[in-house]
Amino acid sequence: MSDKYGIQPVEIIRVNHGKREVVVDAVSVEEPIEIRIASADSSKALSVTMRTPGNDQELAAGFLFTEGLISDKTDIISWHESPQGDTLTAVLRNFDGINPASLERHFYTTSSCGVCGKSSIDAVRTSCKIALPPEQLIIESAVLLQLPQRLREKQSSFEHTGGIHACAFFTDKGELAVLREDVGRHNALDKLIGTCLLGMGEDSMGVPLTQFVLLLSGRASFELVQKAAMAGIRLIAAVGAPSSLAIELAEELGITLVGFLRESRFNIYTHPHRIQ
Amino acid sequence: MSDKYGIQPVEIIRVNHGKREVVVDAVSVEEPIEIRIASADSSKALSVTMRTPGNDQELAAGFLFTEGLISDKTDIISWHESPQGDTLTAVLRNFDGINPASLERHFYTTSSCGVCGKSSIDAVRTSCKIALPPEQLIIESAVLLQLPQRLREKQSSFEHTGGIHACAFFTDKGELAVLREDVGRHNALDKLIGTCLLGMGEDSMGVPLTQFVLLLSGRASFELVQKAAMAGIRLIAAVGAPSSLAIELAEELGITLVGFLRESRFNIYTHPHRIQ
Repeated sequence: MSDKYGIQPVEIIRVNHGKREVVVDAVSVEEPIEIRIASADSSKALSVTMRTPGNDQELAAGFLFTEGLISDKTDIISWHESPQGDTLTAVLRNFDGINPASLERHFYTTSSCGVCGKSSIDAVRTSCKIALPPEQLIIESAVLLQLPQRLREKQSSFEHTGGIHACAFFTDKGELAVLREDVGRHNALDKLIGTCLLGMGEDSMGVPLTQFVLLLSGRASFELVQKAAMAGIRLIAAVGAPSSLAIELAEELGITLVGFLRESRFNIYTHPHRIQ
Repeated sequence: MSDKYGIQPVEIIRVNHGKREVVVDAVSVEEPIEIRIASADSSKALSVTMRTPGNDQELAAGFLFTEGLISDKTDIISWHESPQGDTLTAVLRNFDGINPASLERHFYTTSSCGVCGKSSIDAVRTSCKIALPPEQLIIESAVLLQLPQRLREKQSSFEHTGGIHACAFFTDKGELAVLREDVGRHNALDKLIGTCLLGMGEDSMGVPLTQFVLLLSGRASFELVQKAAMAGIRLIAAVGAPSSLAIELAEELGITLVGFLRESRFNIYTHPHRIQ
């Protein structure tokens, strides 16, 4: 049904200046996947998310990491995928040690609904298990302004479908390190972080990812800032607008948040010292 | 913290052509709300969603309706709101009759994660409790092309924040009937449908909403088509792209799906007979 790049051809009617023509167009594939965690003898459903197929292990690893259920790729013993590819199970080293109450929370927090406001800002701070190294990430305005164009040049799906979110890590020199895409913006970020966690990136980078600038193709929501914070990201630049709670969380956690990064302009919402 | 229109002022640094200035800008408010259902003596959490405050009863009513838990506004006996405004409880007539297994599902399906693919297409069909009246909704291409501009003219928040989703019902003559906005696209649609369900719109329209064209300011995902189907909507037009599963569901349920509705052009993905 879908090819490996998450694009599906469909026959449509294109109407342009009153003229109709039947053409074959490309759309982004959206399919559900259930992420489960397991021990040798027991298993538990954690989340069902609508995602673009592909990089599913990275998606699951990024989700487990940014939700605080694993802190390292060695926490994952093995993967099991259902024959239809709609269920992916991570067998975890510490499965029996996971607090059922903390799992309960995940049934609330699937995909973009995020977690519950103020208390979760505390939760993010305390469940961020990785110690952040001292960092002196600085990026020049001129370099920052080039990132959206570099992202678009490398995106595989967007130009075909116009319907997908992308996020990417760039170095402070503006070089693209890793790029991931998905119909869900949270999934794209989980895939990006999971790729680095599993060491499947172009370089085998592990977390924390303090050395990278995170670029988001869309808006910056609370949930995306939360996920980025869990991975030690210190600078988030979004092509779209940030929400109020995204700004609050970035402010509180010392993260530089940039929005409306377009052509010759951008806004700095928090911690401007990392922009030169 | 936020004004009643879901906009919050923040002090930012605006960088434009290399010049920095500190200005006060407006951002969309994003705050969590827990939706609960209850009887006289028992209550249950159903969903936590990050939403733009305002129209919370409409949001909850639309969510309960599009999830198939209520079929009419008379199913809601009363509302209880927590003092902080972060929990809203609907006391339901049929609370004891709700199947716990169907509630279980909702912990998976909060906000944009949608529900599980093929089986849920069946679920949408069977749990759509309202009988659809015969309908002959037809809209002219020229009228359809005017809708995005009419939506933008009426949006209260977008022009200020650039960070909010809108959706609206239009008549077949292109007249705006109801408009709702939210940081979450699914919330915007729940608010829109809930407004009609509760009879709080400019006209007191009840469901099914077969007579209206639904306009979405962004992309058309599976979940949005699902919600629209539950409310009897027959024509969905999106400014953005549809996903593969959104197209499949619209095709199967007889819904006309239009995407990339911009300036002089649009694409028809399914059931083109409603576009003249």
